[in-house]
Amino acid sequence: MSFDRLIRRIAETGNPTVVGLDPKLEYIPAPIKEAAYLAHGHTLEGAAEAILAFNKGIIDAICDVVPAVKPQCAYYERFGWPGMKALADTIAYAREKGLFVIIDGKRNDIGSTMGAYAAAHLGEVDVDGERFTPFGGDALTVNGYLGTDGIAPLLDLCREKDAGIFVLAKTSNPSSGELQDRSLEGRPLYAVMGEMCEKWGESTRGEYGYSAVGAVVGATYPEQLSELRAALPHTFFLVPGYGAQGGGAADVAGAFDSRGLGAIVNSSRAVLTAWQKQGRPEAEYAAAARDEAIRMREDIASHIPAIHL
Amino acid sequence: MSFDRLIRRIAETGNPTVVGLDPKLEYIPAPIKEAAYLAHGHTLEGAAEAILAFNKGIIDAICDVVPAVKPQCAYYERFGWPGMKALADTIAYAREKGLFVIIDGKRNDIGSTMGAYAAAHLGEVDVDGERFTPFGGDALTVNGYLGTDGIAPLLDLCREKDAGIFVLAKTSNPSSGELQDRSLEGRPLYAVMGEMCEKWGESTRGEYGYSAVGAVVGATYPEQLSELRAALPHTFFLVPGYGAQGGGAADVAGAFDSRGLGAIVNSSRAVLTAWQKQGRPEAEYAAAARDEAIRMREDIASHIPAIHL
Repeated sequence: MSFDRLIRRIAETGNPTVVGLDPKLEYIPAPIKEAAYLAHGHTLEGAAEAILAFNKGIIDAICDVVPAVKPQCAYYERFGWPGMKALADTIAYAREKGLFVIIDGKRNDIGSTMGAYAAAHLGEVDVDGERFTPFGGDALTVNGYLGTDGIAPLLDLCREKDAGIFVLAKTSNPSSGELQDRSLEGRPLYAVMGEMCEKWGESTRGEYGYSAVGAVVGATYPEQLSELRAALPHTFFLVPGYGAQGGGAADVAGAFDSRGLGAIVNSSRAVLTAWQKQGRPEAEYAAAARDEAIRMREDIASHIPAIHL
Repeated sequence: MSFDRLIRRIAETGNPTVVGLDPKLEYIPAPIKEAAYLAHGHTLEGAAEAILAFNKGIIDAICDVVPAVKPQCAYYERFGWPGMKALADTIAYAREKGLFVIIDGKRNDIGSTMGAYAAAHLGEVDVDGERFTPFGGDALTVNGYLGTDGIAPLLDLCREKDAGIFVLAKTSNPSSGELQDRSLEGRPLYAVMGEMCEKWGESTRGEYGYSAVGAVVGATYPEQLSELRAALPHTFFLVPGYGAQGGGAADVAGAFDSRGLGAIVNSSRAVLTAWQKQGRPEAEYAAAARDEAIRMREDIASHIPAIHL
């Protein structure tokens, strides 16, 4: 099962964090952008080439420090199909470097359509006899509002292809409580969604007790993190909201079990913009990202049990 | 406001239906696929070229019959970035032909990221001084699980750019009730979501009383359709589930107001595969789609009040 691979990578690197690859043009050093514009002009292709080159630098600098990266689809879709090509190329490059890739797409739809998303992001497609891997992620974030038949096609693939999913339970944004905290027949909606993750994952449990159906739970809601960790012993957590969104290491500690497992904490902006925040020259953007990734690893490791399988 | 444009198109065509462009290779006549494979081989590019050519034939055949088309992102993402290029090219072609384009992406995320999706699908992006329209839809389907701050960036664009959104309320799939029908503090979750649509749309109401924030309500749940029509007087409905999924014209009648407005009913498979279902030759696939689109228009028109503004 897919999260076994992620868990082993976490143990190898001693690092339960993931770098979010959410590139914006304003994060990218001018020489990288200029080279891309020289080749493609100020176009969507130029922007896509710049974010790919930027991502490769980040990946090279962090691939021995972190177990995983999480590209956010929106920041690639924004540059149209050239952006989606940069997404596919970023994923392929990250996987070449041994990283586990979580595609953050929050996809959701009815069963037949979800099958198409599953194939796109985690599987293969058939073009009249030839097989292709459109995006090639190891895991995909999804939204469970449609219930079981929007999740089932993903489970088939999780079993077949050693992939995983993370279902939104309690998101990190300020207004997540408007629906998620409200009581659904006596329990908060996020808790009901979490319980569905346990149920969906039942037949996909791996070596370390966690299933292929994880949950997204925000670092910005530490109480709910601890509560859900206790309630959902087989559900691996993806924890956004550390750093730029306001969550600290103490806030995420409750997401982990006694082996220092059970969760992976995401940071995007703080890593990608480390060179700007540290006031370092453009040429050091990747080194600055690496320093920030190491700082984050130490910060979180100092707040959770020692990681062991 | 965007749905005013859609509503005027509906009145002009006397047709409150939308053709879902959810192409699969098995729907496409062999000569179209062979031409695409001749140019590009059995590749993602070849598949994308085939679905684009297929879509253009459908669009040519239906553009004077229906007011709108609804491409489903999953069926384009499945063919990777070439598929996303086919999506953008399909949208551009449909808009050239005067069609209103609803991108069915069910996107959702935290505010800053949702801003990127909004720009991608409904707006423009800036590449260091040059402006581009990545996908160029008129409306986008979204998932409201994250609450107001995942919707707000879209509202800004709906005002600025004459665009609209459809938020999932009660979806058409068999398991939609697992969460959506359950009681959230005394009312079904779908009804709460519907009420949020009314509230989100408040400041975006157009000439015909409907706001730029619509809701997705499935044809497969006729009782909920009627109930929501009564409860949400300013919320325009996108109604999937007619035809292949089992909903009939009598089932969708409750979605309409006394002017025959208030909803647009989607059909995908029945139109795209009409040539196969009618046993007609491949060369007539577009003509068969047109016949089915006309049949659907007549079927629905005969069950709702005469359309007038």
